[in-house]
Order: sequence, then C-alpha cells, then structure tokens
Amino acid sequence: MTTSEVISELAKQLPASAILTDPAITDSYRRDWAKDPDAGHPLAVVRARSTNDVQAVMRWASRHSIPVVPRGAGSGLSGGATAVNEGIVLSTELMRDITIDPTTRIAVVQPGLLNAEVKKAAAAEGLWYPPDPSSFEICSIGGNAATNAGGLCCVKYGVTTDYVLGLQVVLADGTAVRLGGPRVKDVAGLSLTKLFVGSEGTLGVITEITLRLLPPQQPASTVVAGFHSLSDAVGAILEITKVMRPAMLEFMDGTAINAVEDAVKMGLDRSAQALLIAQSDSPGADRSREANFMAAAFTQHNATEVFVTDDEAEGAAFTAARRFAIPAVERLGTLLLEDVGVPIPALPQLLEGIQKIAQDRGVLVAVIAHAGDGNTHPLIVHNPEDHDEARRANVAFGEIMDLAISLGGTITGEHGVGRLKKAWLPGQVGEDVMVLTRKIKDALDPAGILNPGAMT
Amino acid sequence: MTTSEVISELAKQLPASAILTDPAITDSYRRDWAKDPDAGHPLAVVRARSTNDVQAVMRWASRHSIPVVPRGAGSGLSGGATAVNEGIVLSTELMRDITIDPTTRIAVVQPGLLNAEVKKAAAAEGLWYPPDPSSFEICSIGGNAATNAGGLCCVKYGVTTDYVLGLQVVLADGTAVRLGGPRVKDVAGLSLTKLFVGSEGTLGVITEITLRLLPPQQPASTVVAGFHSLSDAVGAILEITKVMRPAMLEFMDGTAINAVEDAVKMGLDRSAQALLIAQSDSPGADRSREANFMAAAFTQHNATEVFVTDDEAEGAAFTAARRFAIPAVERLGTLLLEDVGVPIPALPQLLEGIQKIAQDRGVLVAVIAHAGDGNTHPLIVHNPEDHDEARRANVAFGEIMDLAISLGGTITGEHGVGRLKKAWLPGQVGEDVMVLTRKIKDALDPAGILNPGAMT
Repeated sequence: MTTSEVISELAKQLPASAILTDPAITDSYRRDWAKDPDAGHPLAVVRARSTNDVQAVMRWASRHSIPVVPRGAGSGLSGGATAVNEGIVLSTELMRDITIDPTTRIAVVQPGLLNAEVKKAAAAEGLWYPPDPSSFEICSIGGNAATNAGGLCCVKYGVTTDYVLGLQVVLADGTAVRLGGPRVKDVAGLSLTKLFVGSEGTLGVITEITLRLLPPQQPASTVVAGFHSLSDAVGAILEITKVMRPAMLEFMDGTAINAVEDAVKMGLDRSAQALLIAQSDSPGADRSREANFMAAAFTQHNATEVFVTDDEAEGAAFTAARRFAIPAVERLGTLLLEDVGVPIPALPQLLEGIQKIAQDRGVLVAVIAHAGDGNTHPLIVHNPEDHDEARRANVAFGEIMDLAISLGGTITGEHGVGRLKKAWLPGQVGEDVMVLTRKIKDALDPAGILNPGAMT
Repeated sequence: MTTSEVISELAKQLPASAILTDPAITDSYRRDWAKDPDAGHPLAVVRARSTNDVQAVMRWASRHSIPVVPRGAGSGLSGGATAVNEGIVLSTELMRDITIDPTTRIAVVQPGLLNAEVKKAAAAEGLWYPPDPSSFEICSIGGNAATNAGGLCCVKYGVTTDYVLGLQVVLADGTAVRLGGPRVKDVAGLSLTKLFVGSEGTLGVITEITLRLLPPQQPASTVVAGFHSLSDAVGAILEITKVMRPAMLEFMDGTAINAVEDAVKMGLDRSAQALLIAQSDSPGADRSREANFMAAAFTQHNATEVFVTDDEAEGAAFTAARRFAIPAVERLGTLLLEDVGVPIPALPQLLEGIQKIAQDRGVLVAVIAHAGDGNTHPLIVHNPEDHDEARRANVAFGEIMDLAISLGGTITGEHGVGRLKKAWLPGQVGEDVMVLTRKIKDALDPAGILNPGAMT
C-alpha cells in the first residue's frame, strides 16, 4: 500500500476532518515547547474526538506498525510529544468533556481539557483541583496525567498522581481498558492506574481521567524574603519544611529576580541572591501563626527584608511574579529548561554547582525552584543562532543533570523524560531498572509503536 | 537432586539458622490471619536478614523453579501469605533496621519493622507516619507496602502508597533494584515504585522502603453520634465529606455496637442502627468549627444523640472501641472478613444488600466501615465446625463481593486480593485488565515463582 492508501484506510474509520495532512497545518504539531531540533515530519495529525477514535487509530497503527505520538496541548518541556518520521501525531485536544459529581467530589474528564478549565469547572461546584503547573492555563489535563505533572502547591498538596483515581486507556493494540474508578480506596489488582500516570504515552493513550477533588482552598497568607546568601536561604527552607507544610515555598535566584524586576517593576531587591515566596493556607489563627513562623525563620537566617501579607491580591502578585519568571528570563535569550531535583539539604551544592557549570561553559543560567520539595528549574539562556554557544548550552544541560544525579537527585521532578533527557535516565536509575522498564514496555507494546524514542 | 539437597544448597548461601524446616515451627508460617483452609505445607521457611539473603533465595528459587511466598508479620487478611506446597515461605520479620532523617522528614526502613514501630521511631524525632491499619500494632511495614494498606486516617491523609517515595526490591531472578528514592518529586522513568506498592509479592520482594513523614498530627476533637436509620447516617456522612475532610469518619452497625458494648461497657446506644465516630484535627479554632459542623450535620440527619469532646483521652477511647470491634465481634464466632468499598452514595444499598444476604444465607454479618471513603468491613460470623453454616458463610462472602461490584465498588479497599478474593478480581476489573495484569506478571516473573496463586 502507498502512504496515501494507508491514510485513506484510517480515514474510513474516523469522522470527517479528523485527519490533517496539509504541512502548513501539521508543521505546528511537530514540536512541543521543548522545540526539539530533531523533530520529524509526521505522515498525518489525527485529532480524536472519542475513545472509539483512539481505538481505531491504535488498531490501524498496530496493523501497519506505524508509530503514534500522543499529544495533549503541546506544552511539554522534554520533547515527549516530538513528532517522528513515518509516524502520526495523535492529538486529544478535541476531547473536552467534563462531568463533576459534587456529592462524591469527583470529576470525570477527557484529556483535551486544559488544567485551568478543570480547576474552573471544579470551582463552579465549590471544589478544588489542586495540581497547578506554572503552565496551568495552557497545558492539558491529559498531558498532566501522562507526565505526572506537579506545580507550586505540590509541596503541601501533592502531584497529579495523588488525584487520579481512575483512567480509561487505549492500549497499543486498540483495546480500551478502565483502570481504577470513582473509589477513594481500591487495592484490587496491580496498581495499573499509577503505572500509566507518568508513562508519557509509551504504554497507552489516556482517553478519560477520574479525578479526586478537594474542598476549596482556604485564603493564604504570603511571606516574601530576600537573602544575600544561597545557604542562608536553604537554611530557612529546611527550618520550615522540617516542622510544617507550607502551601507554597518558591525560590528565584538573582538572575531571575532581576529579569522579573526588569519586566514587571515590583520593587524586588535586585541585590538579593535568593528570593523566597512562601504561603500558609492553614485555617483560622494557624495561618498567621505559620506565616509568622516562616517570617521568623527567614529573619533568623539573615534575610535582608521580610514582607508578610494576608492580602490575597498582594500574595497573588508575588505568585504571578514567580510564574512570570520563565517568560521574563526568556527575554534574555532562548531557554533550555531544566527540571532537576535534589534532597533539600543538597540544594546549596546544586545551586553552586550550576553556577560553576554556567561559568565554565560561558552561558547564563537563571534558577527558579519549587524549593520546598527540592525541585529546581535552571534556565539555560543562549542564542541558538550562535552555534558554539548553543553547543555549550547543550553541554551545560547535560552537566546539570549529571550534577543532580551525583547529589542523589533526579533529572526530572515534574516535566518528564521525553526525548531530551532520555540519554540521562540510565545514569539516574541504573541499567537494571532500565531492563525492568523495557520488560514492561515490551510486554505492553511489543511492536514499539507507542511514542517511540520517548523515555523507554 | 533430592529436596534436602536443594535446601542444603540454599543453606550454604545463607547465615546459620536462616532456614527453618521443623514442621512444629514451620506450621505457624503456613497461614496469615485469613486462615486459608487450603494452605499448603512449605518445604522450608527462610528468615532473611538482608537484601543479600533475599537475593540468594530468589537466585536459588529461579534456578530450581521453586515457588516463594513472601511474608511480613503474617497479619494479612486475604491469604496473600498462604504457604504453597513445594514452595518456601520467605519471611522478612528479622529485617528490622530503621533510619530517620528529621531534616528531610524521611525514614528508610526494612520490611520487618511493625507499623507501630515506624510510628514510634518517627514520633521520637517529632514526626508522624500517618497510615494506620487497625492492626498497626502487629502488622509489618513491608506488608503494608505490599498490600498498599489503609487505615482510619486515610480519609484525610491517604494510604501507604502516598507515603512511599522509594523501594529496594529483589526481582524474580535475584536482581536487586532501587526504585525512586528520597526525593519528594521525581518523574524520571515509569512509576515503578507505585507499581510495586500493592503488588502483593507477585512482582518482587520489597527489602527496603523510603517513607515520607509528616510534621506531628495536631490534637483532635471527636464527635460521636448514633442513628436509628442507615440512610440518615449516610446522609450525614455525605453532608460532611462533600465540604470538608475529617481526620477520621468511622462507622459501626447495630451488631458491632452491641458486640463492643458487651465487651467494654462504654455506654454506647444499643438500640442504634449506626454509630459514627468522626474527628477533626484542623489547627486552632478551625478544629471546633469543624467538630461543630459535623455535630450539626449529625443532628440534622436525625442522630439520636450527639457527643462532642476536645478531650484526647475521651476521643481515644472511642477510637479504641472502633478498633476493638473486630475482636469483639469475633467473640460471637469465627469471622470471614470482607473489605468491600463503594462510592459513598451507594453505602445504604450496600449495607441493606448485605443484611439481605445475611438473612438469605442464615448467617450473622456485622459491619464496621471507614465510612468517609466508602470502605466497609462486613464481618461474617460463623461456626467452622458446622459445615453447612461454614458453606453458607462462604457463599455470603462471595455474594457480598458480587454486590459491591454491581454497585460500582471494589472487592478490596485496603486488604488486598490474595488468594481468597482472586476469583472475584476479573468480575471487578474485567478480562482485558486481567490480560494486561498477566502480561506484566509474565514479563517480570516468567517462571511464575513469586507468590503463585495470589492476585494475578
């Protein structure tokens, strides 16, 4: 069969206009936000509207051994949705149903809905979906589940997997299975729901997610402090996390502070080496007790200035400044975005090591972090037109992951391995775990058609 | 080789006295608390003292295709540790090391330590390990991880998997792998840690667990209420869970209330059809606000009497009464212990259906429940000497699981599938999920030597 005959065969199984083949359109599906320079040219982009559509695609792909790259909103940062040659991109962006049962505090959502839309639908019922990637306004809930996405509130409220009670997944051969369901506790059989969360499209395509929701978050107090020394800032973080659970505990280094201040003029201390933004959302009087405790910890660890506010709008402005750090630093050049994590006591070594790598390689690296769980985002600024600088940036990208591994850390705390970090995965988990991983991959996707080249 | 030659070969790899073969001793390792009548006679019991010992056992077992039944404290309730003929029981009871890092709030524990010992060691550092199976004083942390055990505080604080950051696991061929680690956020590779939690010894033997600890629990207020109607009690539960997260929300039916009152004389209302015991541990003034809210919900749903106390000792007495329900009901006869769960709105149908099954089969069934997450423990009382009654009890055991499945529920909320519930697993998850399960099992344990007959 010719390629166009193969595509026609698929078209017969799908609703009209589900398949896009015009390169002017399909080009925008070749890359996610990782902007993988090695992205392939897909045969077609398929926009599924239902689990049945996804099943038809996978049956067809199995029949013809055609690689399938599942794609949510395309906001991934590790190249998990990079298109491959001779393959198709399977987009779930049109699968956007949501049903909320306020009585049991459960949402059943299709993967194409954005995280912000899930939050909004929950809020309309007086409920809360906590996970909050910085990209929450543009990332899909399906992508969140596929990568086990995190965010700012993880430090107290956990990551995506902590909220996924059930999944519908289409397997490599087109079989649709339901895993878990609307039951808060359920240990019947292997923990397959948990296995598929974070599997980055390598084991199946998620077509429905059952999410646990919480009662609404309480108002938060915000505490902000600048530090002249990284080790002072980390000392304050440990002082806090060893005895309490802040609702947020975020970090920006001097480069990030100045980039944000250049962009939004908030009056941040440009001379600080570290800015910490913390919140308590504990109820009643405990909120100010916790806020005061954090402020005292900051002061005790030589903060240059400490600011405490109960005002929600003021607090939101600081959170927005932190969320704005990536676009602000991006004004300085193209970014290679890291996601390395270490145990919190190793943060000073990680941060100092990163600056040494930046100096050695002659590139600028700004660091922002979900400091309360040791998850950092070094942003490697470079000019991709300058090939030598781009090369040095890539070397630094790898060296920072090697550094995190050497400190007992992880190459990715919340973005996923995708294609960009795949070469470092064995260094972190070891060859025996890679063998175990491939056994599972081979058992579930023997022809290797599900997101080939990503993670496994 | 003769059996004794095969055993001798293993003995050479292990420290002295690691292998027990005297039937007077090994008999006590044939069954867990499920008291499986079909338990086999093991070739030997091996008490490992290290990961190396477990590796030696698995290499030897692989070489000779000898079934290995991993065993923690033997307090399992589904026959997950039932011995099999021609196999060995691999006990981790002597692996009892624990190290706590208070700075990062992490414990690294060996599987033989009891849950209560983990809690105590954490408390000595001013920290808290939340999961609290009713059997916490006699169950092992390794068994907790292998079954993804729950408990009373799950309704607010989650189950075992929510606290497991990393595992060391010995695979079927004797390879020891480290999965996850002391990192709060880590999405590098498949979620293998989560896959092994709850795998009931069918995929590997857990030899070390890295646990996340929390700052200490705050003092709790306790609210207790009796109801003459099950649907009133469930109405009150839903009223509470849809807007707040109680730290505990437990249920006893009339039979359980009377059995407890017979045993401990607490002045419980013997005429009640349902007793609810709820707690709030929210900080500051929010604790009494939540306690009062729950008390008002009970009153509004026609509670016969409502008792509220801030006194920790009084609250603990009610919790102890609830924990004592199983031994109290056991005074009435031998128990078949269920663990079925349903979405909370289906609780009245489940509870009424259970009473109908009890009547139809002429057996007594008392029900206690972690009501706040819909997880019930029907206790089927019977006399095993009366063969007809024992048969009817077993029929009821299956019918109750069928009922839970028909209500969109689960056959096991926290005990595991083991051998006793295995026949019902396909009915709940479906044949396609069983196929998926067996693909993973076969990939990781091709000879089927790991806990054969359990779950998969």
